[in-house]
Amino acid sequence: MSRITTIAFDADDTLWHNENLFEEHHRKYCKLLAAYHDEETVERTLFRTEMRNLELYGYGVKSFTLSSIETAIELTKGSISAEELRNILDFGKNMLAHPVELLEGVEETIAALSQDYPLMLITKGDLRDQERKITKSGLAPYFKHIEVVSEKKREDYARLFRQHGLNPTKLLMVGNSLKSDILPILEQGGLGVHIPYHLTWEHERVATAPNENDNFHELASIKHLPALVAALTS
Amino acid sequence: MSRITTIAFDADDTLWHNENLFEEHHRKYCKLLAAYHDEETVERTLFRTEMRNLELYGYGVKSFTLSSIETAIELTKGSISAEELRNILDFGKNMLAHPVELLEGVEETIAALSQDYPLMLITKGDLRDQERKITKSGLAPYFKHIEVVSEKKREDYARLFRQHGLNPTKLLMVGNSLKSDILPILEQGGLGVHIPYHLTWEHERVATAPNENDNFHELASIKHLPALVAALTS
Repeated sequence: MSRITTIAFDADDTLWHNENLFEEHHRKYCKLLAAYHDEETVERTLFRTEMRNLELYGYGVKSFTLSSIETAIELTKGSISAEELRNILDFGKNMLAHPVELLEGVEETIAALSQDYPLMLITKGDLRDQERKITKSGLAPYFKHIEVVSEKKREDYARLFRQHGLNPTKLLMVGNSLKSDILPILEQGGLGVHIPYHLTWEHERVATAPNENDNFHELASIKHLPALVAALTS
Repeated sequence: MSRITTIAFDADDTLWHNENLFEEHHRKYCKLLAAYHDEETVERTLFRTEMRNLELYGYGVKSFTLSSIETAIELTKGSISAEELRNILDFGKNMLAHPVELLEGVEETIAALSQDYPLMLITKGDLRDQERKITKSGLAPYFKHIEVVSEKKREDYARLFRQHGLNPTKLLMVGNSLKSDILPILEQGGLGVHIPYHLTWEHERVATAPNENDNFHELASIKHLPALVAALTS
């Protein structure tokens, strides 16, 4: 039963490394504020600022940089110097300018699957930054559709599928976030392949995997995806 | 000769006020830095920072806020206080949270034209912010296609028109920026209707209007657009 007509992919931490850059920023940021507060307080306050600003700022490095500056001013009661804040601006710029590092096996897998299926890229975040990463990745030619969205909730996917005339029950989505890439697809009757990344942002964490759902699959590496697709369609 | 099959609109300063919010930020920003530099120096340095960061940051309020903070640190040689920098963060948040104020005549004009033509919205900037403004405007239901893009150069339009199967020579685009809304459309054989806003960001200014081009039209207000469209298609 060949029910799969489109394979969709998340990008950050599914095709290329991303969360490791944020982790690096966190380390440098905690070091910068170490004279004022312990790491746990810094992390907790930064996350609270990010969540408070999420509706207004959305996702991405620029939002993260602005929230980092706001948190640093708050945590130091305004006594942090402008030069120290400039370091935070530079952390953000370095993240934006960083080379794109593909995860192992990505290029071969995407190239192979693109011969048999139309591929779709669905990524959330800052428009300019995501477009730049897609270009730098060299993977753009393999994708029939590339969509940058501001959220990845069920209704955001439903809108995309309507626009492209796609039946969600015939779509397989691959991603590292159960919350953003897998659960909203399963809810619409699609297939979800979860490939965990070794780091997960607190905001993306969910309590339990939907292991009882027959449409849910988990892989240790994208390298095993072609075999899974073959098994699902044979 | 009814050659118009789609009418496309820019959003910021074409459908709703936008540049006036930036002007207000500029005034408050120059006031904040008045103890250090005259207004002309502040404006010139901020613009230079924005242009230097444009490739990395893209357009929009978050980019503008980050460049404003960077410029303030630079212009004060690091002596600006964290509390003063927090004011700049707040200016930016106020811009993002500001209500959308439609220009005069927009709602009636859009409603009327949507009865006879498929309408398209093509706006450049920050994805989250533009989506929020479109929602707040109440105009979304009138548009068949809504596209947020990171640039509005000729190739960006060409890509959109390909995606939507639109013939650019049958498209009429309405906007306040000659550089971003009109010239790239005229270059592809489309019709351009320029409706100037009373403020233009330096980056969007061009030396001369393409007055010799028969596909170029200029209106003082969007209210006159239905009459122009009627004349062009009769």
